[in-house]
Amino acid sequence: MARKIESNCDVLIIGAGPAGLMAARTLAEFVGQDPNLKVRIIDKRSTKVFTGQADGLQPRTLECLKNLGMGQIYEAANDMTTINLYNPDENGMIHRTDRFPDTIPGVSRYNQCVLHQGMIERHFLDSIHEVSNGRINVERPILPESIEVDESKADDPDAYPVTVKLRYLAEDEAEPLQFGHKVSNGLFRTTLTTAEDDDAEYRLPEGTEAGLLETVHAKYVIGCDGGRSWVRRNLGLNMVGEQTDYIWGVVDIVPETDFPDVRARCAIHSAESGSVMIIPREDKLVRFYIQMQERADQGGRVDRSQFTPEKIVDSARKIMAPYYLNYSRMDWFTAYHIGQRVADKYSVAERAFIAGDACHTHSPKAGQGMNASMMDTWNLGWKLGMVLTKRAKRSLLKTYESERQPFAQALIDFDHKFSRLFSGKPAKDVLDGSCVSMDEFKEAFIRNGLFTSGTAVDYDESIIVAKTGKNGNKVASHSDLAKNIAVGCRFKSEQVCRHSEGLAMQLGDLLYMNGSFRVLLFAGNAANPAQMDRIERFAAYLDSSESFVSRLTPSDCKRDGLFEVITIHSNTREEIDMQDFPAPALYPPFDYDKIYADCETYHRGHGHAYDKYGIDPKHGAIVVVRPDGYVGMVCDLEDTAELETYFSEFMAVPAKPLGAQAEKDWTFTAKAKAERRKRVLSSSPAQPRASNKASFVHVETVPVGQTV
Amino acid sequence: MARKIESNCDVLIIGAGPAGLMAARTLAEFVGQDPNLKVRIIDKRSTKVFTGQADGLQPRTLECLKNLGMGQIYEAANDMTTINLYNPDENGMIHRTDRFPDTIPGVSRYNQCVLHQGMIERHFLDSIHEVSNGRINVERPILPESIEVDESKADDPDAYPVTVKLRYLAEDEAEPLQFGHKVSNGLFRTTLTTAEDDDAEYRLPEGTEAGLLETVHAKYVIGCDGGRSWVRRNLGLNMVGEQTDYIWGVVDIVPETDFPDVRARCAIHSAESGSVMIIPREDKLVRFYIQMQERADQGGRVDRSQFTPEKIVDSARKIMAPYYLNYSRMDWFTAYHIGQRVADKYSVAERAFIAGDACHTHSPKAGQGMNASMMDTWNLGWKLGMVLTKRAKRSLLKTYESERQPFAQALIDFDHKFSRLFSGKPAKDVLDGSCVSMDEFKEAFIRNGLFTSGTAVDYDESIIVAKTGKNGNKVASHSDLAKNIAVGCRFKSEQVCRHSEGLAMQLGDLLYMNGSFRVLLFAGNAANPAQMDRIERFAAYLDSSESFVSRLTPSDCKRDGLFEVITIHSNTREEIDMQDFPAPALYPPFDYDKIYADCETYHRGHGHAYDKYGIDPKHGAIVVVRPDGYVGMVCDLEDTAELETYFSEFMAVPAKPLGAQAEKDWTFTAKAKAERRKRVLSSSPAQPRASNKASFVHVETVPVGQTV
Repeated sequence: MARKIESNCDVLIIGAGPAGLMAARTLAEFVGQDPNLKVRIIDKRSTKVFTGQADGLQPRTLECLKNLGMGQIYEAANDMTTINLYNPDENGMIHRTDRFPDTIPGVSRYNQCVLHQGMIERHFLDSIHEVSNGRINVERPILPESIEVDESKADDPDAYPVTVKLRYLAEDEAEPLQFGHKVSNGLFRTTLTTAEDDDAEYRLPEGTEAGLLETVHAKYVIGCDGGRSWVRRNLGLNMVGEQTDYIWGVVDIVPETDFPDVRARCAIHSAESGSVMIIPREDKLVRFYIQMQERADQGGRVDRSQFTPEKIVDSARKIMAPYYLNYSRMDWFTAYHIGQRVADKYSVAERAFIAGDACHTHSPKAGQGMNASMMDTWNLGWKLGMVLTKRAKRSLLKTYESERQPFAQALIDFDHKFSRLFSGKPAKDVLDGSCVSMDEFKEAFIRNGLFTSGTAVDYDESIIVAKTGKNGNKVASHSDLAKNIAVGCRFKSEQVCRHSEGLAMQLGDLLYMNGSFRVLLFAGNAANPAQMDRIERFAAYLDSSESFVSRLTPSDCKRDGLFEVITIHSNTREEIDMQDFPAPALYPPFDYDKIYADCETYHRGHGHAYDKYGIDPKHGAIVVVRPDGYVGMVCDLEDTAELETYFSEFMAVPAKPLGAQAEKDWTFTAKAKAERRKRVLSSSPAQPRASNKASFVHVETVPVGQTV
Repeated sequence: MARKIESNCDVLIIGAGPAGLMAARTLAEFVGQDPNLKVRIIDKRSTKVFTGQADGLQPRTLECLKNLGMGQIYEAANDMTTINLYNPDENGMIHRTDRFPDTIPGVSRYNQCVLHQGMIERHFLDSIHEVSNGRINVERPILPESIEVDESKADDPDAYPVTVKLRYLAEDEAEPLQFGHKVSNGLFRTTLTTAEDDDAEYRLPEGTEAGLLETVHAKYVIGCDGGRSWVRRNLGLNMVGEQTDYIWGVVDIVPETDFPDVRARCAIHSAESGSVMIIPREDKLVRFYIQMQERADQGGRVDRSQFTPEKIVDSARKIMAPYYLNYSRMDWFTAYHIGQRVADKYSVAERAFIAGDACHTHSPKAGQGMNASMMDTWNLGWKLGMVLTKRAKRSLLKTYESERQPFAQALIDFDHKFSRLFSGKPAKDVLDGSCVSMDEFKEAFIRNGLFTSGTAVDYDESIIVAKTGKNGNKVASHSDLAKNIAVGCRFKSEQVCRHSEGLAMQLGDLLYMNGSFRVLLFAGNAANPAQMDRIERFAAYLDSSESFVSRLTPSDCKRDGLFEVITIHSNTREEIDMQDFPAPALYPPFDYDKIYADCETYHRGHGHAYDKYGIDPKHGAIVVVRPDGYVGMVCDLEDTAELETYFSEFMAVPAKPLGAQAEKDWTFTAKAKAERRKRVLSSSPAQPRASNKASFVHVETVPVGQTV
């Protein structure tokens, strides 16, 4: 008889792939702040890291990783810079017909890049452990056996309405199948499966005994258990969409070839043998996506055993002929066919959620999979954290599905179109209507660059996205004040200068994901006394007992814990001192990191942030950025009522709010401050700066021995 | 009775501070390649990391760390961007009189930055362990008790002429003294000591028994044991120079102040109370160097116990008045007085060396100490590695002293001048000759920015630096071929484009320190058939049995193990394919990382490397870069005799050389290559590139739900 235990937890995450790890990482931030929160993450496999499994990291994903303190991932990855198109000429010989940038220049401070998932997961595991003070660690191998949601208790904040029964496996019960191949492969998790395969995956292996059984009562469950999600099926959520019969092979090899662009991203259409996509990777590896001649049968059934590494490479050789292709090392291979489906619902009563591949399946060639999965729980994690810590109302959770489901549908539509263009036979001329026009393919490739960057996501109006004030939040944004900042889109990073030291910094780097909203005060020309009056009035409001900061921040929280005010003025560092900004609202005593200037720097030029954001450098604006980096609203310095309304829509009023703050802790009196200001103004002006326009300065060397 | 053992090793490093760790790290590269090499590093202290102890990392040091695979150090450090000068006005009130860039813009791809030594040492320990395959680890606490060099055996490559007796301490015998303070401090290692203090440091603590005794027979010993070096004194090497009587206090604090520039580097001269230097650091810390009113007596003796943290901060308050100064945290403090001395000799018979502070002591305020120390062993390490692995002649070792001793003298001269200017009282007007002119101070500060960047070092002509062919190596460089590349200086990194994938890269990042020389072939306009003839002739020479590569590389070494040929052409990636470069010399089969283009990139603009190096983009040049990144010679593509001569001066002829290499391993025949070339040339030209000049691209967002 198996031993049985019972337990409670706030969140149970099922599945420790990209979606599950991102859920755990975002929630870790709240666990680190609240010793009573209990978040668990389980996985049914004993193996941590699979070779091979990889995807591109999109610029937007990299921005988010940076805001989780995992920016070092970018250092290890391989940048993708160039896309080459190869097409057949009139003789059927492939040649390079086009070359254009991968990642639209200027779309982000990061380029699209590639790194194997194992490395990414390792960074996540370390970061989750560290940020949660060691309180969240992936538990494996553990298999879920049943899930039930008591919807009648869904609205009770103290209830544990989800019951999940778990079974602990022995290590050797959870090894992925390798189908007799020596080379690591992903056939065990390929999409070449049927419903029976899916169920078999979650059955206790024959001849093994059940280990420990645990009944978990959870406030929330997130199913991040992949395309064949057990959670999704057991919650009765459905996938809507279709399956193609094209089969693709994938190999990760260190190639030996005379193909000129093997180290750059290539899309190769051959005349008769199908298509290949090349994705260069780290550590000299190159991934090949190779169209196979086989087709799935009507039931979607395919004999997995027929896809051997050599057979897949042979297909590539045919497509890439007459170029020579061999390899010195193969790390991994798999085969799949493309299904394009989206879940119709993302949760049961906003208590049991699904995320990642559990909600959407599509082809991997656009490098969307891991990104879309991580972005799902990047969206859900902070919302759940805010609700669990009673900072936000439960209605916030509805925006997970309303924001992510339309995105997934757009993704699938994109993938549907792109896959068809890529799997189809190239047209010989414009009259060849049954085949794919290479011009159309190229156009789609270029236009979709923005989509695949991950930066184009524009969430609809909702309680947390204040656009027109009509379909969600009651507030209408004053978008004319920041013409290039789109409410609902991610806040794009631009360079500013940290006032205290003159360092060129990315504004995006200040948006560390700790659950706090950022109130970016573009203060305009603060050296103008009239403008400084406006700034001081806004600051006085923030410090008053009426402000959203004073009313909505709990008394046991730091003043910048829920709402961090960051000031970016349009002056030079000589025109004004950071101590001239009103304390404590904008310049909390001895915190030298809250004031930034949009000015020339010595080593990185001028960021021209006001210009790029479309903000008047005299007048300024206020931009509210959500904890996940998306713009919630834009308003003017006088729009304090709008700010109140915006936050009141979804934030909870704490039992004991922080209240007003005075300048009482300042050691400097107003008089001392005025005197200091007079002193500084009377000092000789700083000398004109060296031009930073020229990136190269001719350097005269100093011989050793010569005293300088 | 203590137990006694006896052992042999190739190199024994005494002291695991910055100089010792850099010695171990550079030698680790050779240990990793040669399983018979035995390198040890010992330290007399049990503690790994001291809080506080810190220095700026100069741009040149950061370049070297990058070439040791430790570039991530830069990420954690605090950039120094701005220098502010504060001087008294006619009323004696300090105010900001000047502001200018710290780190001369354009001098390096790195800015000067600050990070605490513990963090740097941790990176070193990890890297040494990894690169040496776990075979080098700091052994501590171990005390040297005697050292002897048998000079008669100095020239025997198989001899172990240095005998060192070691004593193993118990952990608690090696704790640094804290002088009764609760705050960590550096008083135990301050320069406020006498010769008796020095000796006491190396005596077995009273009442303790000797632990294990070991007699080590070493081929080479490096003494990296600091300013009061036991190795130096026991080898009979002398320090020449002088000691000032100014005493300085140092504190690392998180400051609370209304001083406007506390987060930027500042040099503050008060009218009557002395000077302060402010260095902002990581983790909100700021270091203050504070001039004390106390003076050392004639014997250099000072009572260390009088320097309390509060006393030091009080001195700063006087100097910085009327600004308020307090702190929320103090991490560390110390006090020192400035000695400026250089060792007269750096070795005994090039068998027992000294390095780092053991060779030169000076004031810490210019952030030179740790840098100069690491650069000493950066210079010595590869030379010792080359000699030990019999790749180079023993005469190479003489260049350690001939290169580093004049540098140290220049450093001390610089420090002498700078310290005097900084410690002196500011002159009230130009007639006040007894005091320091603030104009002179500013000029020195600006002019010395180049010196303190570490990039100005210009080694004299020697067997490894071929300038005029008169005073060292018999070869004269053809410097007119690369007008802005100074032979003897470090090779400055510029951006190039990796041909295979279009990635913008720093040429300097290719100079990983693995003991190999880089032969940078600036191939010029390779699309011109006449120029390609020149390139092919040079390539044929490299592959022939007469070339230095074939003759000097041992047969058990990879062909690029001692001499790596890297080609940088001046064409676009559309004008020529990387496969068009002669294989195997320039394009080793299936190695896609040897060919670079000086051309526009999609995401990082154009590097204009030829222009910046002053190389004719049609004609080209060859630049030989030493393993440590310094330029050894410049010559033309036909100067194969000069290359032979240059390397023959100091490289050893192996018993069994690698010999010629043929294109035998190529799968492609010349005919196939010609056909391929024809195919590529006949294909339609790639479309014109999007301009990368504009750093900002206006991005139209795509609403969710809209199929793109």
